[in-house]
Amino acid sequence: MRVDGVWYRSVWVDQANFQPGDGLPRSTEPGPMEPGDGWSVHILDQTRLPWAVEILRLTEVGQIAHAIRSMQVRGAPLIGAVAAYGMALAVRADASTEAMERDAALLAATRPTAINLRWAIGRMLTRLRNTEAAERARVAYAEAALIADEDVAQCEAIGRHGAALIEAAAAQAPDRAVNVLTHCNAGWLATVDWGTALAPIYRAHDQGIDVHVWVDETRPRNQGAALTAWELGAHGVKHTVVADNAGGHLMQHGKVDLAIVGTDRVTRTGDVANKIGTYLKALAAHDNGVPFWVALPSSTIDWMVGDGVAEIPIEERDATEVTDVTGRTADGVITTVRVAAAGSPAANPAFDVTPARLVTGLITERGRCAASEAGLAGMFPDHA
Amino acid sequence: MRVDGVWYRSVWVDQANFQPGDGLPRSTEPGPMEPGDGWSVHILDQTRLPWAVEILRLTEVGQIAHAIRSMQVRGAPLIGAVAAYGMALAVRADASTEAMERDAALLAATRPTAINLRWAIGRMLTRLRNTEAAERARVAYAEAALIADEDVAQCEAIGRHGAALIEAAAAQAPDRAVNVLTHCNAGWLATVDWGTALAPIYRAHDQGIDVHVWVDETRPRNQGAALTAWELGAHGVKHTVVADNAGGHLMQHGKVDLAIVGTDRVTRTGDVANKIGTYLKALAAHDNGVPFWVALPSSTIDWMVGDGVAEIPIEERDATEVTDVTGRTADGVITTVRVAAAGSPAANPAFDVTPARLVTGLITERGRCAASEAGLAGMFPDHA
Repeated sequence: MRVDGVWYRSVWVDQANFQPGDGLPRSTEPGPMEPGDGWSVHILDQTRLPWAVEILRLTEVGQIAHAIRSMQVRGAPLIGAVAAYGMALAVRADASTEAMERDAALLAATRPTAINLRWAIGRMLTRLRNTEAAERARVAYAEAALIADEDVAQCEAIGRHGAALIEAAAAQAPDRAVNVLTHCNAGWLATVDWGTALAPIYRAHDQGIDVHVWVDETRPRNQGAALTAWELGAHGVKHTVVADNAGGHLMQHGKVDLAIVGTDRVTRTGDVANKIGTYLKALAAHDNGVPFWVALPSSTIDWMVGDGVAEIPIEERDATEVTDVTGRTADGVITTVRVAAAGSPAANPAFDVTPARLVTGLITERGRCAASEAGLAGMFPDHA
Repeated sequence: MRVDGVWYRSVWVDQANFQPGDGLPRSTEPGPMEPGDGWSVHILDQTRLPWAVEILRLTEVGQIAHAIRSMQVRGAPLIGAVAAYGMALAVRADASTEAMERDAALLAATRPTAINLRWAIGRMLTRLRNTEAAERARVAYAEAALIADEDVAQCEAIGRHGAALIEAAAAQAPDRAVNVLTHCNAGWLATVDWGTALAPIYRAHDQGIDVHVWVDETRPRNQGAALTAWELGAHGVKHTVVADNAGGHLMQHGKVDLAIVGTDRVTRTGDVANKIGTYLKALAAHDNGVPFWVALPSSTIDWMVGDGVAEIPIEERDATEVTDVTGRTADGVITTVRVAAAGSPAANPAFDVTPARLVTGLITERGRCAASEAGLAGMFPDHA
């Protein structure tokens, strides 16, 4: 999506044949590989957003693993695409089967919850195991590019299927903006482009529909206040940041027309793992008759898991993410401050699971379906 | 409760006849009025906690109004007691009826949601209107002291009635700590002593019951992470700070035995206004069969209001409380950082209303009762 008028993706390979105006963002970093080495991988450092737009050039699989682990890139679909490029960097450096399998394991261990990570690595491995070592680098770049392009196409389709919901809400309330609540960041920064939960919002906005987004700040990492607010603002979409605590109150008072969130894993029965706190918003939506939609590419569906609450492992992240907050001081310095009382311990489960019974429906690249075994099997008979 | 071994109240009048060892904390501030002017009002500056324990000496009603408005003191019962002392300072300075009524209006306008504020001011006015001007200062100090002492006695009773619940949970799980979740700060810092929601926890702990508290950080002002964690730590109670988003997940996994929160106003039908986000925790408790208790002195009950969601005014506070966070840097400087994207607006409703149907029961100074018109009328036939 747009930043300062330039259309960005959230991961891209440096183009050997880059032409100004072809729409791909470029690294502003000078270096001997410039312009256009044709193989290095570029990301926006999301730990620096919203304070600075910094492009990182990654040349080794270890840097990719670090980028995923440290959340320089985050969001299930983007993690998958970046890991695919990590496999490309890996086999470019060492195309042996032994190294390839070791690097795949390294990448798979970076984050425990997102299904797309293992999905993308598995797809790359399947392709590469059937490829001669000498051909692996070329094939890996092509496959990673395919994964990225498919993600963009899927998100664009999710945008179309979801925008219809916003359009319908606008028809019900023609004299005011449609109010959509979202949690965390499931925008283009969480995918390769468009996003999942935000794709319908971008599309509705670009179609001229008056849409306003309630942005949950999404403690403890503040991806809502930092990333979602930043990308909506950069693209020109009206929005208001609220504490995660506020959504129930807003719904009680009719200020939310629908909620749309992303997901890190959906079970075959429609249970939804997503950023911690999603379950609480789904409960509030259910209690107030507010439609609660979950947007996802089908690669996020885990066909092996039936009971999300019992079976999906929930990542426990570092306690300092809760006790400490990073932001920018009035004079522009990025600073971390402790907010919790000295000596008090903290716990930090990163995701929760929303039972399917609380989900109005799923918005996928193929269309909308019920969050149930029947709904998913009907939409994806080839997978179920 | 104890801080560094000294038993504190959260508001006290400087004692003219102070004796070391009588248990009242003293201002450490040097000045001509020391020791013991007998009339100045002392508070802990809660905007400085948990980073510094600073005692403020207030000598004018305007300082009291500022302390309430700026949340140097907060918590419904404490606001009532401090406002009562504000009336004492007011009539000490000018005992005319005109000035008294004007200062009462000034104090009543400082915070819109808490019922105790208007209750305490009303009680003081009733007493003072029936008192000769020359006697008003003496009567006002006595009445304010009575309000404070009654609050301590009520909270102590709430502690007794609530500790029985923790005792019962401990009997069910003798091999581990009882896990209590709380939201915001309804501890002794929110009352004159003991607290409301935390009073049962302090009593259970002091009785030797193994109790552990999940402390919601309580964005946007972080009163949980800052104040509740601080006071539990100072008194030696086990606790863990969590993001407000985490409670539902903890309940889904059996990690919460009961929830206890305070309240700023309870309707005669049992609806509960409390810090924003309380409603979400009540929904999660209901969905997971976790008992959800609300602790309050009866002065918090608004017998005039039936429908909490429709009728209780919800204070909208400054957006910077959401976009900016204050904490302490590694080198000890209290600093405010912006966490939201530059230019993104924010909304900040400070309270929400939990419908009575989600509340397991109320813990009052007279005992426990159902959160319903019948439950409250049965417990308080003299008020209903």
